[in-house]
Amino acid sequence: MTASPSTVAESSAPDVDVVVVGAGLSGLTAAHRLRQFGARVAVFEADDRVGGRVSSAEVAGVHVDLGGTFVGPGQDRVLALADEVGVTRFATYTAGQNVIRWRGQHRRYRGTVPPVGASIVDVARIQLTLDRLARTVPCGRPAAAGQAAQWDAESLGSWLRRSHASSAARDLIAIAGRTTWGCEPDEISFLHALHYIHQAGGLSSMLDTAGGAQEEHFVEGSYEIARRLAAGLGEALRLRAPVRRIDATADRVRVTTDHESVSARAVVVAVPPSLRGRIAFAPALPPAHTQMAQRWPAGVLSKAYAVYDRPFWRDRDLSGQGLSDTGPVFITFDAGPAGLDAPGVLLGFVGGVYAREWDDLPPAERRARVLSSFADLYGPKALDATGYIDQRWGAEPWVAGGPTAVPGPGAVVPYASALAEPVGRVLWAGTETAKRWTGFMDGAVRAGERAALQAQALLAVPTTDDEQTGVAR
Amino acid sequence: MTASPSTVAESSAPDVDVVVVGAGLSGLTAAHRLRQFGARVAVFEADDRVGGRVSSAEVAGVHVDLGGTFVGPGQDRVLALADEVGVTRFATYTAGQNVIRWRGQHRRYRGTVPPVGASIVDVARIQLTLDRLARTVPCGRPAAAGQAAQWDAESLGSWLRRSHASSAARDLIAIAGRTTWGCEPDEISFLHALHYIHQAGGLSSMLDTAGGAQEEHFVEGSYEIARRLAAGLGEALRLRAPVRRIDATADRVRVTTDHESVSARAVVVAVPPSLRGRIAFAPALPPAHTQMAQRWPAGVLSKAYAVYDRPFWRDRDLSGQGLSDTGPVFITFDAGPAGLDAPGVLLGFVGGVYAREWDDLPPAERRARVLSSFADLYGPKALDATGYIDQRWGAEPWVAGGPTAVPGPGAVVPYASALAEPVGRVLWAGTETAKRWTGFMDGAVRAGERAALQAQALLAVPTTDDEQTGVAR
Repeated sequence: MTASPSTVAESSAPDVDVVVVGAGLSGLTAAHRLRQFGARVAVFEADDRVGGRVSSAEVAGVHVDLGGTFVGPGQDRVLALADEVGVTRFATYTAGQNVIRWRGQHRRYRGTVPPVGASIVDVARIQLTLDRLARTVPCGRPAAAGQAAQWDAESLGSWLRRSHASSAARDLIAIAGRTTWGCEPDEISFLHALHYIHQAGGLSSMLDTAGGAQEEHFVEGSYEIARRLAAGLGEALRLRAPVRRIDATADRVRVTTDHESVSARAVVVAVPPSLRGRIAFAPALPPAHTQMAQRWPAGVLSKAYAVYDRPFWRDRDLSGQGLSDTGPVFITFDAGPAGLDAPGVLLGFVGGVYAREWDDLPPAERRARVLSSFADLYGPKALDATGYIDQRWGAEPWVAGGPTAVPGPGAVVPYASALAEPVGRVLWAGTETAKRWTGFMDGAVRAGERAALQAQALLAVPTTDDEQTGVAR
Repeated sequence: MTASPSTVAESSAPDVDVVVVGAGLSGLTAAHRLRQFGARVAVFEADDRVGGRVSSAEVAGVHVDLGGTFVGPGQDRVLALADEVGVTRFATYTAGQNVIRWRGQHRRYRGTVPPVGASIVDVARIQLTLDRLARTVPCGRPAAAGQAAQWDAESLGSWLRRSHASSAARDLIAIAGRTTWGCEPDEISFLHALHYIHQAGGLSSMLDTAGGAQEEHFVEGSYEIARRLAAGLGEALRLRAPVRRIDATADRVRVTTDHESVSARAVVVAVPPSLRGRIAFAPALPPAHTQMAQRWPAGVLSKAYAVYDRPFWRDRDLSGQGLSDTGPVFITFDAGPAGLDAPGVLLGFVGGVYAREWDDLPPAERRARVLSSFADLYGPKALDATGYIDQRWGAEPWVAGGPTAVPGPGAVVPYASALAEPVGRVLWAGTETAKRWTGFMDGAVRAGERAALQAQALLAVPTTDDEQTGVAR
């Protein structure tokens, strides 16, 4: 490993087979699989920890997932990976009734359809229409949809207005959008919203707890998957190593940080789309790639956890699942273990328009507002938390938002293909590049595995410098 | 100047008074004014040339402006700066008739209103409405407009549809938008479009040649302004020096490139909004700044010049100003000097949807398509160019697009204040941060001068370490 970033042509064997940029779940998975294939890898992570949008903390003695948390049916790749590294899971608590604060009223309900009065029919109409249109958008190829140009030219919010959606339907879709994308309906390309719904198996699969993408979470926490993958990488993993440039030739890549420069046969860039722009590529990436990195910003979603001596809401036959048409917290889950004697854990999401104000508040004020939101749903006992923690993903320098990238109108048809399209020996991972479950942990794992296979295919082809150096592959 | 980027606290005097990041027209102006104030400056430019979105080339012996070109009435600051450095200007050629290709027909016309048939009344209605609404958006404070939330929630394209604009009006506005912002109407927040129109003095001021922002250009080329400012900076200017991190304390900043680290009392970051994300700030910028940098992407506008032995179109009483409702070139100007014996120079713009395809073509194909567009407007003689050059701003690694940043729906109300709002000793310049003529060279100069005044004000306040080191200011 030399210190000369500008020299690309070299006749000796490369330092490693593949460099992976970014040690989120996607990059870690790519590196893990490549090592299973027998490849030599180096992994550079800009931050001082692995995991990317998966992170953890302990609060009042309880483990909480600060980022990606839930898994559900159909998310086969993250489930297989968790099994492989020995991380176990349990069902999200759903017993009892859900609550909703809506138009100043507090109501209980069972099942997935909140009681929003006569508008319920219109809510069903909008949901059915979204699901029907979503199925016409090919997974992984949104620009190939028959109405792609029209749908990419408008936002989800514009479509809702054009469809004369009731205010209840618009507000419920806004809540779903904030949770899923960390944005308001006016910010997201309608084509992207439809594509996302389709590749997550439809609205129910995407939004439901029991039977949906929030069905289970991990006993040891989702971060434990990342931690175990990282431990397996040993010295191949470098933290605090932002990659500054990637130089590519027909046969080689050279990846340079502030401290070292490593040559390889391929590089897997596994960072969120907007962070690709921080790396200088030589030769420059095709214009569509440069533009895409500027047009798929991260959403804004923050998470807050309050821990209680007991899950007091369960005493009152409440599930801990709640919705609100005001903020800052607009959706809650019971994220604690089973049993009435275990500590109680409420998880609240703050996103989109609410996150913009709340993220800028001082810590004590953020806590006060979240507990007040919890109390609105679950009564004054919710103010007596024994522990509290929040995570503002929009303030994380090496993530820059969450949970996933949100293209605005006009950013999908011309640019979506740049998400995953290899540029010579530069390959792409990260949940945004997945064809199924993009935006979820499962998408991150799928993308990492696909990139590992692409890199492996490149390694299998002899190059000019193999002939020169006599390396047999 | 030490090599220790991580140490910020220091008791000695800073290396310089102000560091300027980016040697585009805005950063160069800031540095120039600060030196006139007596300040010691260092300027770091990532690219191997100065100028940013102002650049030049010679083709077939003729000088052409590859980036910012035109100036007009009201652009007082760039005109004053040009006078100051001795760069002179001349009127854009406008004698004779304009041409338009529209719905398959070729027509000549005089003045600023193209003959689009009966739709002319609707075009006038849309223009008047845009101008009227634009005047209600306060310059520099778009979020303070009475209808800011509603207008930011939709795109210019959505507003045109909602206003039942005729297809002629929509297509003409699309041409104006491609030229002005390098985007399609569906990509731009309607609030931003209105604000931009207002701060450029209205649609006529923004779009017209005679009497408008395209009235004149520079004899020596706009790049000569940048070159002369850079020459005046001497060794204070470093090229090929991308800034990687900025560490700030209450009293100091430290700016670090791959090769050096410089302390100062203030830093002026004069790069396009989307490139701010490439710099690591410690402490991290407030979340709104991080989000803004992801949500104000550069537009996509490319320029192409063809040079001819003679300006043959002038023989036929044509001005060289042309419009087309097809691409790749959708608007042209005569960018050559006066006189029938001088070489003829046609300038064509390729932007928005057309640039996305054309930018990816090989050079010979790009030339063939541009000359074919010119021939559609000016006849087959346009195919016999003696010289040709194009500039794809979307492919420039340290500009990443052009001519200016384009926020989509939802990106103005929450984030526009982060464009110019100082963060302690971190100040911002660049044309996007100007309150007047943002997006133009004049805005770049205004922003640079404003940032220089802000930095000067910081220098005038004694700091703790002045007391320690006995520096009198």
